[in-house]
Amino acid sequence: MQGSKREWDHRQKNRDARLARAAGKLGAALSGKLVPAERMVELLHSVIESGDRVCLEGNNQKQADFLAAALCQLDPAQVHDLHMLQSVLALPEHLDLFEKGIASKLDFSFSGPQGAQLARLVAAGKINIGAIHTYLELFGRYFIDLTPRVALIAAQAADRHGNLYTGPNTEDTPAIVEATAFKNGIVIAQVNEIVDVLPRVDVPADWVDFVVQAPTPHYIEPLFTRDPALISEVQVLMAMMAIKGIYAEYGVERINHGIGFDTAAIELILPTYAESLGLRGKIGRNWALNPHPALIPAIEAGFVESVHSFGSELGMERYIESRPDVFFVGRDGSMRSNRAMCQVAGHYACDMFIGSTLQIDLQGNSSTATLGRIAGFGGAPNMGSDARGRRHSSPAWLKAGQQAQQGKKKMPRGQKLVVQMVETFREHMQPAFVEELDAWQLAEQAKLDIPPVMIYGDDVTHILTEEGIANLLLCRSEEEREQAIRGVAGYTAVGMARDRKMVENLRDRGVILRAEDMGIDKRMATRDLLAAKNMKDLVRASGGLYAPPKRFRNW
Amino acid sequence: MQGSKREWDHRQKNRDARLARAAGKLGAALSGKLVPAERMVELLHSVIESGDRVCLEGNNQKQADFLAAALCQLDPAQVHDLHMLQSVLALPEHLDLFEKGIASKLDFSFSGPQGAQLARLVAAGKINIGAIHTYLELFGRYFIDLTPRVALIAAQAADRHGNLYTGPNTEDTPAIVEATAFKNGIVIAQVNEIVDVLPRVDVPADWVDFVVQAPTPHYIEPLFTRDPALISEVQVLMAMMAIKGIYAEYGVERINHGIGFDTAAIELILPTYAESLGLRGKIGRNWALNPHPALIPAIEAGFVESVHSFGSELGMERYIESRPDVFFVGRDGSMRSNRAMCQVAGHYACDMFIGSTLQIDLQGNSSTATLGRIAGFGGAPNMGSDARGRRHSSPAWLKAGQQAQQGKKKMPRGQKLVVQMVETFREHMQPAFVEELDAWQLAEQAKLDIPPVMIYGDDVTHILTEEGIANLLLCRSEEEREQAIRGVAGYTAVGMARDRKMVENLRDRGVILRAEDMGIDKRMATRDLLAAKNMKDLVRASGGLYAPPKRFRNW
Repeated sequence: MQGSKREWDHRQKNRDARLARAAGKLGAALSGKLVPAERMVELLHSVIESGDRVCLEGNNQKQADFLAAALCQLDPAQVHDLHMLQSVLALPEHLDLFEKGIASKLDFSFSGPQGAQLARLVAAGKINIGAIHTYLELFGRYFIDLTPRVALIAAQAADRHGNLYTGPNTEDTPAIVEATAFKNGIVIAQVNEIVDVLPRVDVPADWVDFVVQAPTPHYIEPLFTRDPALISEVQVLMAMMAIKGIYAEYGVERINHGIGFDTAAIELILPTYAESLGLRGKIGRNWALNPHPALIPAIEAGFVESVHSFGSELGMERYIESRPDVFFVGRDGSMRSNRAMCQVAGHYACDMFIGSTLQIDLQGNSSTATLGRIAGFGGAPNMGSDARGRRHSSPAWLKAGQQAQQGKKKMPRGQKLVVQMVETFREHMQPAFVEELDAWQLAEQAKLDIPPVMIYGDDVTHILTEEGIANLLLCRSEEEREQAIRGVAGYTAVGMARDRKMVENLRDRGVILRAEDMGIDKRMATRDLLAAKNMKDLVRASGGLYAPPKRFRNW
Repeated sequence: MQGSKREWDHRQKNRDARLARAAGKLGAALSGKLVPAERMVELLHSVIESGDRVCLEGNNQKQADFLAAALCQLDPAQVHDLHMLQSVLALPEHLDLFEKGIASKLDFSFSGPQGAQLARLVAAGKINIGAIHTYLELFGRYFIDLTPRVALIAAQAADRHGNLYTGPNTEDTPAIVEATAFKNGIVIAQVNEIVDVLPRVDVPADWVDFVVQAPTPHYIEPLFTRDPALISEVQVLMAMMAIKGIYAEYGVERINHGIGFDTAAIELILPTYAESLGLRGKIGRNWALNPHPALIPAIEAGFVESVHSFGSELGMERYIESRPDVFFVGRDGSMRSNRAMCQVAGHYACDMFIGSTLQIDLQGNSSTATLGRIAGFGGAPNMGSDARGRRHSSPAWLKAGQQAQQGKKKMPRGQKLVVQMVETFREHMQPAFVEELDAWQLAEQAKLDIPPVMIYGDDVTHILTEEGIANLLLCRSEEEREQAIRGVAGYTAVGMARDRKMVENLRDRGVILRAEDMGIDKRMATRDLLAAKNMKDLVRASGGLYAPPKRFRNW
């Protein structure tokens, strides 16, 4: 046992040394855990060391933007080769860190608007990407082999002890702080205000080392707001097929919707079309979902029993507070979101994921990767994969499993419904169906181990286009699967190359369903079906409680 | 929008009414949130209503036993048809609730010692089982469609405000409390002591409604302690094959071990056998694992970089506190466990799950179900399933994926290593390999929708017995798979019925590996390889820091 002389508290001692440096440098400027904003760069210089793993809270919505800017001001001669851990790479500062030579390695989930710039920096050798994750697996690694040494997070408010109030935007904060604080890391929080008594405590003070009141409130992006005015009649038709051909067919009660206009259309015809089919109380009762404004009419119509959220959505605060039976709210009345637990719920407690995509190949693999951009994954692969560790059953899960196993000598097992919704042609007449995903080329460009597939073909159960639904569960062979996909691929090259006889045979067997096969009258597919036709209608439906951000208001 | 007149704060008003009843009944006996132990039954009568979903904290280890006993004293004429939500059904009181007519429905994960009695009550129509889950999916449902109305939980200590300190046994508490408190439920905590200042805050006071100091400390089961004296030489041989044939072969750094002597043997030969192969720093560096005492020698030898835990283990407290570089500890020095986050980590951040089982069929499905017992699943199905939502790569994950896809026209994808370890004959000469799992009969007995399979064959990558390793990844057909399994099934009927020619062919191709194929000298497989041969050795290896519970001490 040679280890007996080993030092077992290196992290603790090193943490103490960092805190001592901070106390020495900032001295009387520190008031307990409170740090003056103008001393933040100094503080970071004291507590961050070269090579540190630094988790910078860049969430789907909430951004620790003041701390990101302060980090950018570090002297790269003193602090360099930081290994950045981030849910989302969203702000220019997130990349400046690498340009300036302060950081060199990156593990992340999603890069959104910075995807193109990220690709350039990777090509230029300025960023070494560890891996691209989904949110939940990145959180998981925080407890295994990517534990942050320093976490820079954002909250709404702090009290003088350092307790934090996140308000509705709790998001990733608890997972980040827990992994950091309990492995002798250092947690620094930027807050919008410091108050005597918090509305509630979201993160206990003794998990937090320093608090700074930022000069301006942290940035929040209203990512999940879709203006109903921009929904097309094709999207209404697809939404009708989704509801009648999938939601009703499987009796799907527990759902996660992806982001986008396709699923917003579904949300908006629940109180009209689904109601006319007698589906209230039978589908879409429990949701793992951010508070989509488009869901307001369905909530008001009594379709929705509960919504648990990854994060919040700007403008929905008062509406949420007034609907506590539906949303998860604290004693203070405001929402508590939690990305980690909502991703768990979406993976294990939902019967269906339905979302849009950009490209689908002949095996049903789909990807949102486009050339020259490293966009990352976000949460979709976690939600849109069969939860093979699931053991509880439900009618929807059992039926999907039975369809998948027809005629196969296999142990019975349920399956998650994973639906990819896409118009056959995207913007600029780009075909959504392709022989080979752009992801292959991107993998080569960015030197990824394998192509960045968002949802793998063997996890996809249905592909839905304006031409109909392909039920991949019912396909008996790879060849049938390919023809089922071609059979809904419309006038794309992939669709034109279909074997017409085989496609008709698949249609006879119910593997491919056209609108008319489902008894859907296409003439009904008009915008009249939308329970709200524009933002103003959403506000009206909410009884004036929903307050859309300015950019969505034109009145 | 007919919903506008709907009441949207029913849960909130109903919660207020319950709290008012409690205040009215207990009046001055309540001191803030503190409830005298002798008034607990009255309190429960005030705040629980018939039909409520009640989450009773029965974890893998920690039990809210005082609250369970108090619940059993409710008058079934007043309170009945409770819907119990429990991670683990462990105490007789958990079943008494149903015998007495207080509860009627049950959703749970694991029943352990109460499995036989549970089966009897189900057969007698006294318990209606909603579903059997894994821990993580049950937590997920708490946020979707099984949100508790009342949560009865256990912590080490509380302060007078109601802040809770769980000490190392945080376990399921945060997930339960968050789901309950933020959906206007009621949270009642039993604690061992009430103190002025907590060592740290694990659950903030405003998530908690009532605190009671229980007359005796809550029960904790030392579930993960295995006496090395009981490890057989066959188990040492299997452990050697695991290390050389799988850990080293794939370079597995991030691991979850199941419970049992098979994996304890692996832990105990890391500092001897794995060290002799030069594997220190190359395998088993990061763990999602309870603090197994059997891991002490490997930690001391410098094999282990980090351990994140679902729960703690009795007797390991001082050792953990003295090894803060390895374990997750709070500012107070004691561990913070978290079952939800550790299950996430095990699912998404580990490259391998390896655990024991009771029965394996010809498709590789394995089960620990035995007739007449409804045992449940616990955490194994979540850990032991391919994480299809995973997107980050590692050498082990990529290699497993490559082997799985050999010769198949598929999108490249990694795969989790899922190893089932079993001696060909269990206790009482019961064969571990069977044509049909007992799970089929059990499903019929207990009216389950599908057989309760612990790990599905298509998730299993390797089966390891004393006869060798079957690498199911390399099998090209169902038939090969069956023969690979027969080929390591020894002298069981399943093993005897092997096609010898095909098995030899599989061995030639490396699908089946015998000890000698791996260059393992069976004569080395003695107990001498165990870094600790008994409990005293473990204590010694820990430098006297590990203090085994009495039942494990014979000195």
